Amino acid sequence: MTQPSLRDLEHHSAFIERHIGPNDAEIAQMLRTVGHASLDAMTDAIVPAKIKSPAALALPDPITEVEALAKIRAVADKNQVFRSFIGQGYYGTHTPNVILRNILENPAWYTAYTPYQAEISQGRMEALINFQTMCADLTGMEIANASLLDEATAAAEAMTLAKRSAKSKSNVFFVSNGVHPQTLEVLRTRADGLDIELKIGGDEEAADADSFGVLLQYPDTFGQIHDYKALAEKVHARGALVAVASDLLALTLIASPGEWGADMVVGNSQRFGVPFGFGGPHAGFMACRDAFKRSMPGRLIGVSIDAEGKKAYRLTLQTREQHIRREKATSNICTAQVLLAVMASMYAVYHGPEGLVRIARRTHRLAAILAAALGKAGVNVGPDFFDTLHVTGIDAAAVHAKAKAARINLRAIDAGSVGISLDETATREDIVALAGLFGAQADVDALDKATGDALPAGLQRKSAFLQHPVFNTHHSEHELLRYMRSLADKDLAMDRTMIPLGSCTMKLNATAEMIPVTWPEFGNIHPLAPAEQTVGYKQLIDELEAMLVECTGYDAVSLQPNSGAQGEFAGLLAIRAYHRSRNEGHRDICLIPESAHGTNPASAQMCGMQVVVTKCDANGNVDVDDIRRAAEKYSDRLAAIMMTYPSTHGVFEEDVVEICEIVHKHGGQVYTDGANMNALVGVAKPGKWGSDVSHLNLHKTFCIPHGGGGPGVGPCAVKSHLAPFLPRTLGGEGDVGMVSAASFGSASILPISWMYIAMMGNTGLRKATQVALLNANYIAKRLAPHYETLYTGRNGLVAHECILDLRPIKDATGISAEDVAKRLIDFGFHAPTLSFPVAGTLMVEPTESESLHELDRFIDAMIQIRDEIRAVEEGKLDREDNPLKHAPHTATMVAASEWTHAYPRELAAFPLPVLKQQKYWPPVARVDNVYGDKNVFCSCVPIEAFAGEIEAFSEPNVM
Amino acid sequence: MTQPSLRDLEHHSAFIERHIGPNDAEIAQMLRTVGHASLDAMTDAIVPAKIKSPAALALPDPITEVEALAKIRAVADKNQVFRSFIGQGYYGTHTPNVILRNILENPAWYTAYTPYQAEISQGRMEALINFQTMCADLTGMEIANASLLDEATAAAEAMTLAKRSAKSKSNVFFVSNGVHPQTLEVLRTRADGLDIELKIGGDEEAADADSFGVLLQYPDTFGQIHDYKALAEKVHARGALVAVASDLLALTLIASPGEWGADMVVGNSQRFGVPFGFGGPHAGFMACRDAFKRSMPGRLIGVSIDAEGKKAYRLTLQTREQHIRREKATSNICTAQVLLAVMASMYAVYHGPEGLVRIARRTHRLAAILAAALGKAGVNVGPDFFDTLHVTGIDAAAVHAKAKAARINLRAIDAGSVGISLDETATREDIVALAGLFGAQADVDALDKATGDALPAGLQRKSAFLQHPVFNTHHSEHELLRYMRSLADKDLAMDRTMIPLGSCTMKLNATAEMIPVTWPEFGNIHPLAPAEQTVGYKQLIDELEAMLVECTGYDAVSLQPNSGAQGEFAGLLAIRAYHRSRNEGHRDICLIPESAHGTNPASAQMCGMQVVVTKCDANGNVDVDDIRRAAEKYSDRLAAIMMTYPSTHGVFEEDVVEICEIVHKHGGQVYTDGANMNALVGVAKPGKWGSDVSHLNLHKTFCIPHGGGGPGVGPCAVKSHLAPFLPRTLGGEGDVGMVSAASFGSASILPISWMYIAMMGNTGLRKATQVALLNANYIAKRLAPHYETLYTGRNGLVAHECILDLRPIKDATGISAEDVAKRLIDFGFHAPTLSFPVAGTLMVEPTESESLHELDRFIDAMIQIRDEIRAVEEGKLDREDNPLKHAPHTATMVAASEWTHAYPRELAAFPLPVLKQQKYWPPVARVDNVYGDKNVFCSCVPIEAFAGEIEAFSEPNVM
Repeated sequence: MTQPSLRDLEHHSAFIERHIGPNDAEIAQMLRTVGHASLDAMTDAIVPAKIKSPAALALPDPITEVEALAKIRAVADKNQVFRSFIGQGYYGTHTPNVILRNILENPAWYTAYTPYQAEISQGRMEALINFQTMCADLTGMEIANASLLDEATAAAEAMTLAKRSAKSKSNVFFVSNGVHPQTLEVLRTRADGLDIELKIGGDEEAADADSFGVLLQYPDTFGQIHDYKALAEKVHARGALVAVASDLLALTLIASPGEWGADMVVGNSQRFGVPFGFGGPHAGFMACRDAFKRSMPGRLIGVSIDAEGKKAYRLTLQTREQHIRREKATSNICTAQVLLAVMASMYAVYHGPEGLVRIARRTHRLAAILAAALGKAGVNVGPDFFDTLHVTGIDAAAVHAKAKAARINLRAIDAGSVGISLDETATREDIVALAGLFGAQADVDALDKATGDALPAGLQRKSAFLQHPVFNTHHSEHELLRYMRSLADKDLAMDRTMIPLGSCTMKLNATAEMIPVTWPEFGNIHPLAPAEQTVGYKQLIDELEAMLVECTGYDAVSLQPNSGAQGEFAGLLAIRAYHRSRNEGHRDICLIPESAHGTNPASAQMCGMQVVVTKCDANGNVDVDDIRRAAEKYSDRLAAIMMTYPSTHGVFEEDVVEICEIVHKHGGQVYTDGANMNALVGVAKPGKWGSDVSHLNLHKTFCIPHGGGGPGVGPCAVKSHLAPFLPRTLGGEGDVGMVSAASFGSASILPISWMYIAMMGNTGLRKATQVALLNANYIAKRLAPHYETLYTGRNGLVAHECILDLRPIKDATGISAEDVAKRLIDFGFHAPTLSFPVAGTLMVEPTESESLHELDRFIDAMIQIRDEIRAVEEGKLDREDNPLKHAPHTATMVAASEWTHAYPRELAAFPLPVLKQQKYWPPVARVDNVYGDKNVFCSCVPIEAFAGEIEAFSEPNVM
Repeated sequence: MTQPSLRDLEHHSAFIERHIGPNDAEIAQMLRTVGHASLDAMTDAIVPAKIKSPAALALPDPITEVEALAKIRAVADKNQVFRSFIGQGYYGTHTPNVILRNILENPAWYTAYTPYQAEISQGRMEALINFQTMCADLTGMEIANASLLDEATAAAEAMTLAKRSAKSKSNVFFVSNGVHPQTLEVLRTRADGLDIELKIGGDEEAADADSFGVLLQYPDTFGQIHDYKALAEKVHARGALVAVASDLLALTLIASPGEWGADMVVGNSQRFGVPFGFGGPHAGFMACRDAFKRSMPGRLIGVSIDAEGKKAYRLTLQTREQHIRREKATSNICTAQVLLAVMASMYAVYHGPEGLVRIARRTHRLAAILAAALGKAGVNVGPDFFDTLHVTGIDAAAVHAKAKAARINLRAIDAGSVGISLDETATREDIVALAGLFGAQADVDALDKATGDALPAGLQRKSAFLQHPVFNTHHSEHELLRYMRSLADKDLAMDRTMIPLGSCTMKLNATAEMIPVTWPEFGNIHPLAPAEQTVGYKQLIDELEAMLVECTGYDAVSLQPNSGAQGEFAGLLAIRAYHRSRNEGHRDICLIPESAHGTNPASAQMCGMQVVVTKCDANGNVDVDDIRRAAEKYSDRLAAIMMTYPSTHGVFEEDVVEICEIVHKHGGQVYTDGANMNALVGVAKPGKWGSDVSHLNLHKTFCIPHGGGGPGVGPCAVKSHLAPFLPRTLGGEGDVGMVSAASFGSASILPISWMYIAMMGNTGLRKATQVALLNANYIAKRLAPHYETLYTGRNGLVAHECILDLRPIKDATGISAEDVAKRLIDFGFHAPTLSFPVAGTLMVEPTESESLHELDRFIDAMIQIRDEIRAVEEGKLDREDNPLKHAPHTATMVAASEWTHAYPRELAAFPLPVLKQQKYWPPVARVDNVYGDKNVFCSCVPIEAFAGEIEAFSEPNVM
């Protein structure tokens, strides 16, 4: 019998080959280049023996895409999709099909990275500036950011923005008891570490409370619309600021908070086309008065000009982001929800102002009709509502029971009342069914005729919004499709090129992983749906937590944090609560090596910890002696150390176990930043070498797509002694409050990581890590004759990324790391991480899913660039007028009759022959950062400006 | 009460606004340009009163996307997805998810047009040349075409190719009784009209039969693999040819037909990643010896060079296609199955030769194991099989009953036997279940060890296949994703631009229409699944037929024809059968006006009719007098007239009713080509003005996407007297045989048209027609100062398309219609229809779904082009060295240091400023047609050739 066995032929490990770029023959070839006999031998040479896992991952064997999809289908089928009228910040919506397919399910959008490289991100930045304009217009504010994580964290950010900005020196933040419960939860968590006192009360108390700010909800959590104008005046009179949580759809019909005095408005844009998803992800937002723009958290897209003087988008005031982070931080925000913000913005682009008003009017009409029907039957609802009825004086349990039988969810409030929130998806049939729950009849058309609106007369919206052409042009499907394609075509995402971003792990987001995300059984579940309807989600979450526990060596995981920074925050909260539980609440010193991610000190700050920075040595390694000294010095107060492993310098440091011992000896806890888990999975486990807590970036190691800058998923993993101190769920138990609005964070995208781990299995995950190490070392080795690698570890090997030092080149030639980054665009590449963690360097992380072919293409480009630099060195290219300084080159530059450069056009556009086969043309030339920060403009650009009249939208220099 | 009513707010007609490009304000503006007060007034001015429908369409009101998706979801849920092991040419397959999402569900692929414009179709042509290479390699043939409609029609084409090519002058075609029943059905239908005698018998008779060709099936329909080598020699010895129907997956393991003497091989590529779809669509194929390439039917992609001397793909030997059509036709093929062929080719690219062999081996192993399990239980199966077992000596009814209970389908053969076909999706669990149906036990691993292969020893495949790098490179998901994106980016499809192709009706294929297509309840249904499992399909088909009946005024519709040409053929077969049923079978004259589509005479020919061409007058209208004369002359023999309405000249001819009367008076039937139905729906009904039969192009008027040149759907609609003569279904009743392999043709894409009609409703369909008329007249009017419109109808208006006459310009300036077509590429447009129906013209059909913005963009481009032509006229641009003659311009041309043209680079690349915002760069310059036809090369190009060595793959000039 010579035939292969059936078992072999079943090829259960097929996905591993699809995910990992190089095949086994290529791996062998690359190992020869790197100088090792096998992946295991190379791994042994890289990873310190002390931390190496003694056994294989105790996870199931790999399964195929088909098998995994069948398994998760069975999980999904355990969820029950009821009609949900629960509201409380989450509303049904129809994702326009053209947006579903061509944004959410389109790799050109979901595999993109955060738009730090402006020239290759013009498309998604235009979508985001549409989002900003939409939020600013609807809220009546002057400026809005490019999204925040959710409404609750946005409200917390508003609190700290108010703290930074208010004249009042009060330490109190007044929160209306009309805000959503989850918002209150997160505010409590956040206020604790920041020494802010929350005062919660009725709106009538807000006027008189001594506070630096107030947070109101408009309409409130039970649906009522209050006139806050007088209140806002009073609050302002005492030097405090007014923050408002609001609802974008309601704001199409009611006066905007900006019109009655709000200073900042937060909320979420979920109901603009983003499914419930059991609570996330969707895009929160913050809009505010122009005066606060330089203190506003979150990313902000602005308009600048490029080297040719043309309008170009960029992330504006980025230094502000750095400022918000680090030691003085009051926010550690560094993830947005770009993919979801793009969806919401396209929803507005597609519907336009009239379409949105129609949806809002229909929603309100149905609410008014239902209220009338209930009123006729003697059932009470309050006045002045948009979409939500607070039904009182009833037997709530009986109503819920009837609702359940009708597969309907209502909001549980108390024994005598329920909430009913209508939305875009509500129909007349729903009204009949809902009325029936209360024994009421609804003759919908008759009631429609007989019933007036229930919006307060004085608060009807009069002001226009979304008047920019972009919201009034793309209303046919063809037009929107082409608009979205035209934006996608401006950008580079992973469907066209590797994105070798150090510290960001831009790996394959496989289609099979993405497919369950848009199943209604995951997408169409309200976060407050009763547990018996979410059995599938519970299984998914439990299983994913168990998978992550096994991968990390910790004992428990919370999936609540919806960004890495939130995960970090949750981890430190756990440490703080642990110390408190042992009556050591005074421990407040957090050691952070100077090579750390910027969010680390910010998170520590947010927990009320004092940051002590420890040194690194010349090799970029943490200085153990300095840590020991600090630990001894602060022995009584030592709360924690935060470190990244492998280090942000891309090195497996030898001393990690010793450091853990030192910190533990002095009563501290060890926090390991999980950003670099992709170098560890299947090889070593932080939870086993002495670390107490990590956050994980599922959007890095575990295949959640970056989506152009969000969604993120940053679960927090802890050892058992910290497990009681993970964030509680909404209404759940625990010492530590919620860090995100939803109990399980970005629940609807968790199937992605579940699928990845299931398909890769025990062997695949380890192999992925090993090939990630191999790919990085292959690049380092091949580029060694051309660029210096800044830090290496044992045996001259790097971890899963390598830092190319451009500083000597800069000194010799004037060519900077940025010039190289921009020149890579001419080759069709997204640049590596620029100047992090070391200024003047490029950090390259290829990940395991890049093929040898793609690595070689990148290496070829880098060598050609080095040759160009050499030509500068040798005087063959001018020091200023060379293709590096003028990169990237647009088609309009190279196709112009006039060519004034000292180098040929072909060198500008086609520095390698292969580019003649396939060429990416950046839509703009190098973007002017200084101009953009001096002339901050963050809304849709007037059409005329595209003709080149950049001054038309400039504001005076305000720096 | 001032608020709009709930009914208004529900906005059930929302989809109409999404589908139709211009909004009502724009429509009003355009009407002013065209000179009419309203759409109805304009319609009255265009459409002859005689034919106008007196009443609105008796169809339901429009419904929203959400409502329609809910309705069709309920229809889909009536289908039951069993495990199907029926085989008979259709096999389960796993569509790779990355192909599903990024080809089948990606508008960049599905909205593309047939690659007649080579320069903007390089991507899909590369995919098709991969398909050709795959088919040629696997079959062991020298050349293969770019797909045919299905295996049965491909077999019919092989029959006629053999007739054209064989030395033998016999009139007999011998068909093995081992071919699939549906193939035999279609052969019978096709042979009838062509005066070919079919002889059907056992393989042993094939050697001795006097025939011009034989058709064998390998493996045969019951799964057995025969050694045909000796037989092939005998057939050849008598001057006849050997055609073989085969299976691509089996051919990875067994000797290719080419190796044992086949002259041509047909089959389908369904099991390469294309779901069952209840029978279609999927790509049939034909491969043959090189000697037959100039007689081979179907499209053929070849390699040529462009104006810069670079390799470029094009449809080669296109004149051959024209040759096959028209009066001497033996085939009317003019649709391929490009989208499905692309999917199948990508399946091969993704799996590569080793992956395909693994799938084949696994399939075979499971079959061998099942056979062994059955054998142990004393159940007989034959020897020498690949994937299909013919289980004999059993109580078939009892087995089927047990199978049904286990939700399994087996092939029904007779009372004592069943067929079981395994496939890529089969699992060991299936084997256990299948064995159990026969009372057998299957210890799969034990049987695996104990059981050898069942492939005949002498017929194991030894030869290599798919050795080209393209099949050995893109095996990781990232690589394939990027390869597919890179190909898509080379092409222009409707996601980037209007495709104003006259006679092709390139309208929006809305996402909501596409969504149900990939639901398993439509996709995963075997065409021979029992009726009780396909209740949903029956409802879908019945309802769609009723919708089409209402739209056309006919009484019955068959959805079997899977292309317009097949629909035409079915229509003429109905006419012929009708005449025969009245004992007027001698009627054989078919009148065809000279303006007809080329397929018309070809179809007539295929039904054994004699074509008599009638004249058109100077206005392009059919000459009624000439028709009358011809009808009188051939009164006894008159079978039919075939006409297009509105005419191919884009005119509503006044005399259509009179013509019908004339033809009827002389005993003939009226066939109306439905290509231009988009000018009629909701306005006039051919079935009511006197026409007896039409085919409809659902891929034109009813939103089936063109897919780059297929799938097509060409149902045949008839008046009641012809209804009995529509094609029968497989195993069904009726006088007229099948025209396609599957009873309901391209069943799985019928939801598209169903959704379109449901969402547009009675009012939307009429408005779509009116706006299609408006858009065409708006273009004609706006371009009138610049270009002459060749034909207009009443009141100086055109129908839904207009013909721009470039001949005067050519005479004056040397600038040809082709130059204008190619110049449009520089503006990012797909050219209008070139030189059809009149040489030297461009026929523009915008369709209703193009927005005013897009129409204006096109008009601006055409005006700029006219200005350039004027500059040539005035001597400001050189007659030879001008941007029209050298169009399209590639990036490498305009970015070259050397620019030798007499006009500036900017004029070449950016003739309008807006192009600097958004520019499509063609991947090749103008493609050399003559070179390509002289140097026919139709396989994947050796990698070296991309470096410019075009000679490397040239063959000697054989013309």
